Formats: sequence, C-alpha cells, structure tokens
Amino acid sequence: MRKIRMGMIGGGIGAFIGDVHRKAAALDGQIELVCGAFSSDPAKSKESGKGLFLAPERCYGSWQEMIAAEAKLPADVRMDFVAIVTPNFMHFAPAKAALEAGFDVMSDKPATFDLAEAKELAALVKKTGCLYGLTHTYTGYPMVKQLREMIAAGKLGKIRKVVVEYPQGWLATSLEKSGQKQADWRTNPKLAGASCCMGDIGSHAENLAEYVTGLHISEVAADLNTFVDGRLLDDDGNVLIRFANGAKGILHASQISVGEENNLNIRVYGETGGAEWHQIEPNTLQIQYLDKPTEIWRTGHGYNGDFAKANSRTPPGHPEGYLEAFANLYRNFAGQIRAKLEKREPSAAELDVPTIEEGVRGMAFIEAVVASSAKNAAWVKLD
Amino acid sequence: MRKIRMGMIGGGIGAFIGDVHRKAAALDGQIELVCGAFSSDPAKSKESGKGLFLAPERCYGSWQEMIAAEAKLPADVRMDFVAIVTPNFMHFAPAKAALEAGFDVMSDKPATFDLAEAKELAALVKKTGCLYGLTHTYTGYPMVKQLREMIAAGKLGKIRKVVVEYPQGWLATSLEKSGQKQADWRTNPKLAGASCCMGDIGSHAENLAEYVTGLHISEVAADLNTFVDGRLLDDDGNVLIRFANGAKGILHASQISVGEENNLNIRVYGETGGAEWHQIEPNTLQIQYLDKPTEIWRTGHGYNGDFAKANSRTPPGHPEGYLEAFANLYRNFAGQIRAKLEKREPSAAELDVPTIEEGVRGMAFIEAVVASSAKNAAWVKLD
Amino acid sequence: MRKIRMGMIGGGIGAFIGDVHRKAAALDGQIELVCGAFSSDPAKSKESGKGLFLAPERCYGSWQEMIAAEAKLPADVRMDFVAIVTPNFMHFAPAKAALEAGFDVMSDKPATFDLAEAKELAALVKKTGCLYGLTHTYTGYPMVKQLREMIAAGKLGKIRKVVVEYPQGWLATSLEKSGQKQADWRTNPKLAGASCCMGDIGSHAENLAEYVTGLHISEVAADLNTFVDGRLLDDDGNVLIRFANGAKGILHASQISVGEENNLNIRVYGETGGAEWHQIEPNTLQIQYLDKPTEIWRTGHGYNGDFAKANSRTPPGHPEGYLEAFANLYRNFAGQIRAKLEKREPSAAELDVPTIEEGVRGMAFIEAVVASSAKNAAWVKLD
Amino acid sequence: MRKIRMGMIGGGIGAFIGDVHRKAAALDGQIELVCGAFSSDPAKSKESGKGLFLAPERCYGSWQEMIAAEAKLPADVRMDFVAIVTPNFMHFAPAKAALEAGFDVMSDKPATFDLAEAKELAALVKKTGCLYGLTHTYTGYPMVKQLREMIAAGKLGKIRKVVVEYPQGWLATSLEKSGQKQADWRTNPKLAGASCCMGDIGSHAENLAEYVTGLHISEVAADLNTFVDGRLLDDDGNVLIRFANGAKGILHASQISVGEENNLNIRVYGETGGAEWHQIEPNTLQIQYLDKPTEIWRTGHGYNGDFAKANSRTPPGHPEGYLEAFANLYRNFAGQIRAKLEKREPSAAELDVPTIEEGVRGMAFIEAVVASSAKNAAWVKLD
Repeated sequence: MRKIRMGMIGGGIGAFIGDVHRKAAALDGQIELVCGAFSSDPAKSKESGKGLFLAPERCYGSWQEMIAAEAKLPADVRMDFVAIVTPNFMHFAPAKAALEAGFDVMSDKPATFDLAEAKELAALVKKTGCLYGLTHTYTGYPMVKQLREMIAAGKLGKIRKVVVEYPQGWLATSLEKSGQKQADWRTNPKLAGASCCMGDIGSHAENLAEYVTGLHISEVAADLNTFVDGRLLDDDGNVLIRFANGAKGILHASQISVGEENNLNIRVYGETGGAEWHQIEPNTLQIQYLDKPTEIWRTGHGYNGDFAKANSRTPPGHPEGYLEAFANLYRNFAGQIRAKLEKREPSAAELDVPTIEEGVRGMAFIEAVVASSAKNAAWVKLD
Repeated sequence: MRKIRMGMIGGGIGAFIGDVHRKAAALDGQIELVCGAFSSDPAKSKESGKGLFLAPERCYGSWQEMIAAEAKLPADVRMDFVAIVTPNFMHFAPAKAALEAGFDVMSDKPATFDLAEAKELAALVKKTGCLYGLTHTYTGYPMVKQLREMIAAGKLGKIRKVVVEYPQGWLATSLEKSGQKQADWRTNPKLAGASCCMGDIGSHAENLAEYVTGLHISEVAADLNTFVDGRLLDDDGNVLIRFANGAKGILHASQISVGEENNLNIRVYGETGGAEWHQIEPNTLQIQYLDKPTEIWRTGHGYNGDFAKANSRTPPGHPEGYLEAFANLYRNFAGQIRAKLEKREPSAAELDVPTIEEGVRGMAFIEAVVASSAKNAAWVKLD
Repeated sequence: MRKIRMGMIGGGIGAFIGDVHRKAAALDGQIELVCGAFSSDPAKSKESGKGLFLAPERCYGSWQEMIAAEAKLPADVRMDFVAIVTPNFMHFAPAKAALEAGFDVMSDKPATFDLAEAKELAALVKKTGCLYGLTHTYTGYPMVKQLREMIAAGKLGKIRKVVVEYPQGWLATSLEKSGQKQADWRTNPKLAGASCCMGDIGSHAENLAEYVTGLHISEVAADLNTFVDGRLLDDDGNVLIRFANGAKGILHASQISVGEENNLNIRVYGETGGAEWHQIEPNTLQIQYLDKPTEIWRTGHGYNGDFAKANSRTPPGHPEGYLEAFANLYRNFAGQIRAKLEKREPSAAELDVPTIEEGVRGMAFIEAVVASSAKNAAWVKLD
Repeated sequence: MRKIRMGMIGGGIGAFIGDVHRKAAALDGQIELVCGAFSSDPAKSKESGKGLFLAPERCYGSWQEMIAAEAKLPADVRMDFVAIVTPNFMHFAPAKAALEAGFDVMSDKPATFDLAEAKELAALVKKTGCLYGLTHTYTGYPMVKQLREMIAAGKLGKIRKVVVEYPQGWLATSLEKSGQKQADWRTNPKLAGASCCMGDIGSHAENLAEYVTGLHISEVAADLNTFVDGRLLDDDGNVLIRFANGAKGILHASQISVGEENNLNIRVYGETGGAEWHQIEPNTLQIQYLDKPTEIWRTGHGYNGDFAKANSRTPPGHPEGYLEAFANLYRNFAGQIRAKLEKREPSAAELDVPTIEEGVRGMAFIEAVVASSAKNAAWVKLD
C-alpha cells in the first residue's frame, strides 16, 4: 500500500483553483503531489514547486516536458495521474497527451474549449482505457448524493419540474479591467471559449440538475446577457429547459447578481414529493411531501443512504464544506486508480466521479445555450 | 367622522377569499360591513349575512338587487363602496354596475375575465370618476413598499435583473375532481379565464415585479404546462421576461410544486445593489451591496421609509402577516373614500392601492403568456 | 345572534397596547367596541372615543363612571365585558369593580401589581362566577397550541429540559429619560411593580413554558441585572429553573440585548423528541427525533391538531402574525361569553384562554425571581 | 524549506478524533505525519500506521517508545512535534514526556484530567520553552476570529451579556451500554475526569466565550444533571456566569437535547451592538446595532479583518467547515514551529492558537461547575 501519486499541470503561485485541487487531494491522506508543471514560465513553475516542498527535478518547465520525463521514471516513482487545473483553452492538449502517454487524468471543468474537443477526448479515453475524472465539485456534496439516491428510488415520484440557479455577483463591475486574473481569462473568448457565465457556472447548474435527477436536458431556450459595458462574453443568462422525460424547468446563472456569493441551488418537484438544496448551506437537504411535514435531512446521520455516508467524514453538526466536496471527487478517483493497481473492480462509491461523458454533455449544453440566444431564445436541442 | 360603509358581492358561507376581505376590512376599525349579496342563491346569501350579524333587509338576493336598493337609501345609510370577491368571470359585470351607480369599487384580482373587459372597465373608471382598487395583496406588505421606495431612490442602481417566483403545491393532484371549491373554479376555463396558474398567481408575480421595480415588462417568452392529467388549464409555467428599460428576468409560477405553500418571492439586482424578499417571511427584506455586508431590514423600525411606516402597526418583532397586508389595501382605500367625503386630496399613502391600470396590465400579461406558450415560447409583447 | 359588546378601560390616543387589543377584538367580526374609559383625563377619554367612532355618551370620564353607567343600561345595549389595557398598577381595581358589577373581564398582563392582588382577584372570579381572561398573547399562536397538544400526547416523551428566552433590545439606553411613554411606566416601580424586565416579558416566557409543557415551575435561582445607569428596576435577568416533574431548564429575558426585537422562543427536550419555536417566525414549529430527520410543522396544514386548526384563518403560507394570535384570545373569549348567552357549555377551543390561575402563577414567578436575586440567586420556591 | 513533521499519540483504527487531527494537519500541505504510537496495543498501532502509509519502523508500540526513539533520530529526520489525541486521562503523561524530551506538543482538549495536572503542565511549558497548542477547534473559524477582532476594537461597546450554548442530543439514551467507544470513555469518570458534558463540550463553550469577548469568567452557579439512568457523570448542565468586568451571562451544554447535532452558538450584547454566531452555519456572523439594520458578515469577503482573512482559503460562498477550522489551528501552530526553525518571531496570525493558559482556564471551569453543582448551584469562583 502506498499513496497515489499526482502530477499537476497549472496551479502556480497566485492561481486559485490549483490550490483548491491540492488541498482537496491532500485532505484524506490518499494522494501525494509528486511533480508539477505549474506555469508556462519555467522559472515560475520551479518557484511554485519549491513552495510546495517538491523535489526541484520534478518541477518541470512545461507540461509536455513533465509527461515525457515522468513516463521515463520507474513505475514505483512516476506519477499515477495528472491533475489539469489550467484555464479552459488549455484543458484538451495536456489531457490528450497524458492519456496517450498512459496517465490517468483528473481535469478541471469544463472539459474542453468546445464540443468538438470534448468528443475527441471521449473517444481517446475509450481508446486508451485510461481513467478520466472531471471536477464538477458540487456533485461531491453528501446531500446532493442523498437527493440523487432518493430520486432514483422514486421517493419524489416522477419528476415534473426542476429549478436550478447559480447566481454570483463578483463580475457586476468590469473587474477584468483591473487585471484580476480570474476575471481576466474568464471574460476572454480566446481563453474561456464561447461563454463566460454559462461556461463557468451555467455548466455546473446543468451538471447538477442532470446528476440529481438522472434525467437529460433535451432542449433549451436561452436569453444570455452581457450587462457590463465592453465585456466580450455573457455575464448572465436565463434559460427555459425541457427534459427528455417531459419534465420542464428553469436554469439561470449570473455573475452580475450583486450580493450573491456562490449561490448554486436546486429545487426538484415530482408527482409526490419535492426537494431543495443550497450549496451555501450544503449539509441540509429539504424534502417535502403532499400531506405531511417537510423534513430536514442532514449530513452525517445514520438515516442517510450509502452514497451520502461514503462521502462524509464527521458526525452530524460538524459542517463539511466546499473542500470536502472537492476532496470526495479526488478520494473516489484515487480509489479507482487503487482498484486498478490492486487489479480489482472499483466500488460504486469509487466510480461516483464525473467522467468525460458529463464533460461532453456540459460542452453540448454550453454550445446549445449560446446558439439559442443568438436566435432570440429559439429552442435548440442538445445532441 | 364615521366608519366607511362596505357592501360585499360574493363571499358567502364556505367561501375563502370573501372572509379574508372581511377580516382585512375590519382590522383597523375604519370600515364596517353594512350589506351584501353573498351568493347567487338568495337564501344562501341571507343565511350568510345572518352569520355576519347584518340586518336581514340588507342581505340581498343578488348583486343587481343590492346595487339598486342601496342606491335608493339615504346618503347617511347606504354603502360607500362594494367589495367584489367572486370568481374571475363575475368581476366585470358587478364592477361595471356599481361604477355606473356611483359606487366606488374594491375588486379581487385579476380585474376581469379577459383583457377586453379590463380595458372597458378602465374607461368606465375614468368616465365615472369613481374610485377603483384591486387587491393585489402582496404589494400591501411594508417591506415590499420599503424595497419599492429604495429602488425608486436609486439605492440599487439601474436595475438589470429580476427573478420573481410564485410556487405552490396545492394542485399537484387532481383536487378539482374531489369537489374542492377553490380548485374547481380555478381550473374551469369558463369561470377562471384563459389561465389557471398564470391568472391566479402568475399575475401576482407580474404585479409584484412591476410594483417593486417601477418598470414595465415589455415582452415574454412562456412555456406553460399542464402536469395533472385531464386538467383544462395550465398548472405551471416558466417565463423569460424583458423589461422596457433593458432589464431581463425570469418569472415562474406553479401550483404543482409539491411542498411549496405560497412561496411568492422576488430578487432584484441593480448595478450597485441587490435585494431579496419572501412573502412567507414578509417582515424581512435583504439588501446586498458590492462590497459591504448584507443588511437585514425589518418591519417596524424607525429606519424605514414613509410607506413602510404607514403600512405597519406594531413594533419590530411583532410579526405582521397576510391579513395585515390585505388590511393595508383596505385602510388606504378607505382613506381615499374618506378624503372624498372630506373634500380633500388623498395623501400619497392613501393613494398607494393598485388601480384599474394595474388590472389592465395584469390581464395583458395573462394573455401574453398564454399566446407565447401557444407559439412554443416565442416572444410576445405586452401592449 | 349579535356581536359581543366590549367596553375598554385605558388605551387612549397614543397608547400602544390598547390599539392592539381593539384590532385583535375587531379582526374576526365577533366583537364590537361600544364604550370606553380611555384615559384618566375625561376630555382625553372623549377625544379618544370620537376617533374610534363611538357614541359620545358612551365615552366615559373614568372607569368607575363607565362601570356604573353601563350597568344601568338595558341588557340589549350594555357592554358584555371590559377590556383592561392600563399599566400594571391599574389592573386590579377596575377588574375588581367590573367583576363585582357582573361584567366579564379581559385583562392585559401581568394580572396585577403584586401576588396578593392576584390571589384576591382569583377568589373574586370564583365568587362572582364571571369570566376572566388574561392576554398572554403568545400562547395564542397556532403552532404553540400544536406543540402543547403534541407534548400532552407524549410525542416527545417525558420532558427533561426547557430553554425559554425572551430577549429584546429596546431599553439598551435610558429611553425613559426621553419621555417615551412605554419605557417610562415600565421602569417605574410605582406603576410597573417589583420588576421591569421579568414582569413585562419574563412572565410571558414563564407562561409559555408552562402552557406548552403542561408542567409547573417549582423553583428558581435568578440573577437579575440593571445595566442602564439610574434605572430603578431590572432590565435583564438569567434564571435557572426546575420543574415539579424533575425537568430542568433556563429562562432568560432581557431588554438590553441590542438588536433583538421581540425574540421570544422556546426549546423543549423530552426523552424521545425535541421541539423549537420562535415568535418572530411563529408559523413554523420544528420537531426533532432521536433517529430520523427533523420535521417542519407549519400553520394551516391539515396534519395539525384541533387546537392549531381552530386558531388559524388562512391556508398554509399566508403568514399569521401577532395580531392574529392576539385575536385568537379575543375570539375564544367571545366564544365563552356567547356560550353563556346561549346557555351552553363552552367548547374546548373557546376555553383555551389564559385565566386568573395563570395570572396568579405569573405573579408568583415575578415575586420569586425578585426574591431569589436579592439573595444572590439562592433557590426560591413558587407557591 | 520542508514540511513540518508530526508524530501522533493515539488515533488508531476506529478512533474518531485522531482521524480528524490527521486530515486537519494534512489539508494545507504544511505538515506531514512521519510516525505514531496509535494504540496501547503495539500490534494495533503498527496496523494503524500501515493504513496511513507510514514506514513500519516508525509505527511505535507505545508513546514512551516513540518519544525515546524519535529523540535519537537525526535532526533532519525526527518528528518536530507530537499530536496527542487520546482520551482525557492520557493527555498529561505523554505531553509531559514530550516536552521534557524537547518536542513541541499539540494536544486535544481538555488539556488534562484535572486542574492540578494542567497547572503542572503550564509550569513545564514555561520551563522547557517548548510550544504547546490546544485544539479548541471552534475558535479556529474565521467568523469567530472576526467577532473577536470587532469586540476588541470596541464595535459592540462595553460587553454586558453573553449567552453561550452547546446542545447535543447523541447521549439522550444510554449509548455507552451498546459499547459505542466515544460514549463509553466520555461517561467513565476514570477516563474522562470529573465531568462528561461540561468537560467535553461545556469547556468548549467556556473557551469560545472567553476567546470572543476577551473577558474572563469569574464565577459560576451551576445546576448539572444526569438524565440517563445509571450514567455516572453529568449529561446536561445549566450555568449562570459572571465575568470579571461585570458582564453577566448564561452557559448551558447538553448531550440529551434530542435532535441537536453539535449546536455550539454564542450571542454577545454590548452597550452599542450585538452579535450572534452558530457553529452549524459557521460562515455567517450577525452583527446588530441600536438603530440600523442588522448586518450579515460572511467568510471570505475583503471587508473582514486580518485574522478572519488569514484563516480562510476560498472566496465567499464556498463554505469552509469544521475541518478547515481545525486545520487553521494546525497551520498556525506549524507556523510557530517554522518560525522557530527560521529563527524569527512568529506572526500574530501564527500565534493565534490556544495555549496551555486556555488549558488551565478550561480545567478550572470544569472543576468550578462541578463544585457549584454539588453545592446546589451556589456561586463558585474560578481561580
């Protein structure tokens, strides 16, 4: 038995999401960071690695160099997988190279820059047989998993309506002009892709709705907006959604909703029950019925199902947060790698990590809402 | 000085909203119920009046009879105004008759059965010079008025986005088949009009959004649904909305959202601030800013503006509810009548009651969402 | 059938609680105000009555005059009961006089100025056979009644612990020096009695705890405080409590807890369940269990018991507030009077109004906490 | 630069708090676990270490062996500090041995088995000059630190009243009879000390109240209870508290409050402001004022002070929970060790970890409440 070894692409000094990935990977003591190509600037990459207490020789000047060098290391030394934490435009190329070199991949979302890349990557994952995980963090929360399990078991009856929201307010002003790094690349179509708001957070909402309900969105009618002058991509959007089973709904996301922090939330209504969950208070799941009192289900209790239990660490009332949800993805993914090392089938809990299939659906969603909005909110189908 | 005298049309034994109107009218001691035509069945009307301690001779067998008889009574005895609390299809005719007989009118919403009637009524109000009030109850809450005042004063900056919701769950099953009176007429196109959900509660959401923001909805793209088998009208609907000033938004209403009681709520986002209000906890108004802590404004405090203060009765922490909001409409309307009796101009607070103009806008909204949905959610303008 | 006729003692122009009593009495259309002695100043009393649209001859110059004059009026004209809404020192004398003249009495709380008066009044109620109601408003809420019913039915098991709180912040500064009327008399030992905070609101907390649990507080250890310089009575107090059944608890009340509005709340823990209720959001009752999700019980639902149902007026989600709770006391009390008029037994719902027995217990509580605090929080028994 | 090296005493397979310590230490990538004496059973200790991927030779059979062996290792290999995560009775001896061998110590709370041990340990810390940290986890939350900073800056004015609560429900039944390990030792006076409820969680409440206000509790009047038949220690307690500055308050803790998870919370009222914080929703801090709207301060915002900022990792709306609060203690403590390695003064943020002084105060509190309760809640001073 040993820790699973991770190499990181991106996430140098000053980056936001790379640090989150590292903390999430470290939390459960199953994964160790052994190498990285933290920046496209070799000096900055090495400086970043030093601050992470890495051996200097494994702080690489580029991800190409890292993949090549690690592939040559002995099996008991080299990294097991790469974590890709770069901006969107730089997801596909390193993922492709890693898969082709036989490394498993854990990638930040959205999977790629556009749908075509995502489909190509899906084919490559299939071809290589390597593992691919996608960090749709919010499906990592225990009570999201509990809701998914309850809906799958029919506790709410046939689903009729879904309301999923993701309002934020941090881009209500032209923050990108101040040089703020996170705002800068997300609002740049060359780095972010066809959409800012829908690509960055609308796709989380789409993923959450599909994960929780087990349903697929079949078509969308989208009214995307750019409220901040001079911005090149959408910073807000309102979408009517229809599911393949006949359910209807609303998805809206925003980065200009002043005062909203990171308010992803979902409400689901079936024929016999309803449910509500908020990311900001993630350990509470509200379940509603036709004719009896509403129930408050909470993380950590024995009455929860297997998936909720497998993805929490502490007794009820010890709040688990964003990093724990993120860590669930990493721990489950590490379990898949360990299963491979141990030549056994991974468990259902280990397999509970978003895959390239969710990546493809996310890119299809982004392209559909952009296309619909360009046609004045005409309905556009997701392939 | 004397109490203002009210005659009621509808609201007999077993009715829901008539009783609410009576309690609302009674609360502040400004209005007394003096007569009524409580049912289309004369015996039931008289029986109802008896239970309300009315003089038998003023419990009329029909509203036609009441209007005719009251008009002949001495000025110091006859009713000052009629309250119309019948189902939608029976709003226009008694309102018309009352106005033509010189009586002021307070009507339940929506104003009429269709838009054409509403426009005719608006013309009649203008012609007769009588007062007309419409009980869009939810604008009666102090914190709704506070928000309106703050937005008008520019506290949130130019408005960009509005999310207004009105989910209920009481029609999630085919309740109308059980003979439940409220469900029965609301789902009957001959009694309710072109829409059930949007007519009954969607129009409240529309009214709230316009009241609070001071903006007009200019066009809608609506996806209305009928989830319960055999139902003849919509029981749910999702609507993209655009305002005349360029603001965008979402309006959704539902009667099949299991577990939702009467969850009207609104969020408004401007360039520099945001706000959130929920009818279910109506004494709290949340105000958000770009860069400082969110504030909780509450009913009853000295820091509130004139309209909030004029419409609350108790110190902070003594919850005022639905009946108080309803009573605000009646008390303000009674103030208008009293101003007329006293031959003075009504105050701004007295004038703060929805008029036939809001009634016309509401009917235009209902017809627009129905038309849009019939065209697969194509955009339809409100006249 | 006719309305029940009320005469009021106190509650002139500018008074707070008198207006609340009038609105509460008016809400349900069962009671009419027919006369009053609104002030110890006859001119002010008459002026107050005029604003209430009363006949001038029934606006009396003193309560002595009112009781004498009304007693001489014909049975079909004279008041049925008096509502006493004066400061504490002026509760006993008019109540005594009214009872002796054969009038039923509804009194604001606390019942009297001291315990001796309360015991004398209890004897008088018994002797005269008149009805006596005490407006411990907060037991009028539907969900308080629901909790009482559930505890009585054993749903929480044997009660072990009670935490009841009543923090306010309005006396955090020396408001009485500004001439504010409510602050002035409450902090004056000659008008308020032995205690300010404990008498005014601590006694509500005591009453709520005993009403909900059906248990009696047997002894108290109290640490009362006066935080504002120059104030003559307590403005805060912390009390350990013990119940006769062996349950333990905490009661604290405060008028100097800055930012607290009127935050009466209670938590009760039994062997198999727990409960929590807050006056500020009174339509929600939380029920907790050993091993299943917490439940949210809400006003207006069919699943509630008879008492909750009998004391609410609107469907779920139409908030009922302080005035409705207050109105429940008046409507139930009016039912008792009507039962007497109809020579029938009052129903359980009609009898659900605090009596002079609760008044005696409240006064005993106030004297016990004052005595305990004077002995450095030594235990003092309630007789 | 290198990671700080931790050796662990206790925390073998099946232990609860040891795993929490490991995750907390791992989260920020500053500390690595290098050795351990995980159990008093050598085989179990080695098995535990194997599951943690440790080198077999550094999985020791006893803590005595570990301290002796590690002391002999080269400076660039041996552990820097020990983490003590055993039950209360086994805190003092290994802490003493470690300090005497020159190792820094991070200990679970309460510091020792009784007050005498705590005082001896304090003397030893002073004598050896080693670092000592105590994991009063709940002071690790960013918004607790924000409140402390605001109170210290006088934002609430002079403090008058503190209400601190810590209800749990997990010991409402005789869980210890089922063999549940956590219940077993906590209710055993030989392993837990003089108190169960007050020792385990009441001391957290005491520490939180003193940390946040900067005040010292000077005396207590305590009514401790044992509600579950056959239990040897208290499972509930209600305490009147007085602070050295004249402030008053209430502290209560419970393990039999059915339905309460881990509901530590505190309310503080000063002359000009108030505050409220709940561990279960730890990223929200409510601040109240005399005459303006209540404010909601939240983790992660730029408006927070230095200590809140130094102890959070993610942007607003990405909930940080219990493990992050715990990790703050470890990261700050690691900073102190690093400062020593780097021969520099530790920063204010690094020094923000509970010390043996808080440990002594906690033990004094426990002994005082036990003594007071034995005297029927007479006042007992804390030394």
